Amino acid sequence: MQKYKGHLFVISGPSGVGKGTLREKLFQYIPDLYYSVSVTTRKPRKNEEEGKDYFFVDEDKFKKYIKEDKFAEWALVHGDYKGTLLTTINQNLKQGKDLVLEIDVQGAIQLKNKFPEGIFIFIAPPSWEKLEDRLRGRKTEGEDDLKKRLKNAHYELKQIKYYDYLIINNHFEKALEELRAIIISERCRIKEQLPNVSL
Amino acid sequence: MQKYKGHLFVISGPSGVGKGTLREKLFQYIPDLYYSVSVTTRKPRKNEEEGKDYFFVDEDKFKKYIKEDKFAEWALVHGDYKGTLLTTINQNLKQGKDLVLEIDVQGAIQLKNKFPEGIFIFIAPPSWEKLEDRLRGRKTEGEDDLKKRLKNAHYELKQIKYYDYLIINNHFEKALEELRAIIISERCRIKEQLPNVSL
Repeated sequence: MQKYKGHLFVISGPSGVGKGTLREKLFQYIPDLYYSVSVTTRKPRKNEEEGKDYFFVDEDKFKKYIKEDKFAEWALVHGDYKGTLLTTINQNLKQGKDLVLEIDVQGAIQLKNKFPEGIFIFIAPPSWEKLEDRLRGRKTEGEDDLKKRLKNAHYELKQIKYYDYLIINNHFEKALEELRAIIISERCRIKEQLPNVSL
Repeated sequence: MQKYKGHLFVISGPSGVGKGTLREKLFQYIPDLYYSVSVTTRKPRKNEEEGKDYFFVDEDKFKKYIKEDKFAEWALVHGDYKGTLLTTINQNLKQGKDLVLEIDVQGAIQLKNKFPEGIFIFIAPPSWEKLEDRLRGRKTEGEDDLKKRLKNAHYELKQIKYYDYLIINNHFEKALEELRAIIISERCRIKEQLPNVSL
């Protein structure tokens, strides 16, 4: 089965850093990627779709999943639960699909323990000021929520050393090119390709 | 000095596989790369320039360099000596330059022992038939020389496992994109970037 196994790409970083926009654009350039839909207890934002952006569940259901050990990673982030089901990852990888997770840093660190062969990509803001600006510009959170997110970002940036790649999202097009390059080059790694070489 | 150290990219593969053309095009897309000029005893081909394509020397001088331990790698390939001077590599890397070597497989294996932190990229032909076609199409070698090169390619393809990346040069544009992606993504590696992160 080994040769049918897909890649696990984990895109992660502080909230407000622009990882969602990068990930969406990435899928336009590399269409044979699969997005890992997370489970969350937070309320849907405008334009968010059930089963496409998230699986929206209530807290009781989320805690039931935790008890049943169904999560590959989960975290309480800014007061909301978020998690990735183990079945989502295992089914896709077994089918040889390249799966992209867009998750917070707490979740990524958990995942690294369970899937050390994953490719962990940290998206960082160019500066603190810019991160704050972006969070304010989003206008979906109150001042308290904003402070929570900034405090959290301090902890998150210290975790960079556990990742494989760092992309500083200063210029969007450059960051996108770097993200694409990581996907393409990881697919060229010898260990992935040796079973397919027939020379 | 560590933070000023450049990358060492080694592009390698059987002769006739198209690595020279790929490398030339790569430099147009990523201009801040430096080409490591090799020393050779073979006669210049049409359009080849001293100091740009190779340093052309006679056999006596080459053997003097070998005795003086001046080479990072050298090999007798198809009857001609070829090698890379240690000073070429060390000076460029110390200055923080990203250096690209385009060398044969024998040389790359030697280099991997001396510079294990290098990034080793194998360019492979899509098939044996295509490799033979390309060597014939080049028309710069006789039939004996062609046979030597094909025999050598058998040995070379068995060394793929010592490399980091494999690019199968079937469609030129795709192979070029993969080569670019490897350069860009290696520059995003955490270990390279941590000294520059000021968050």
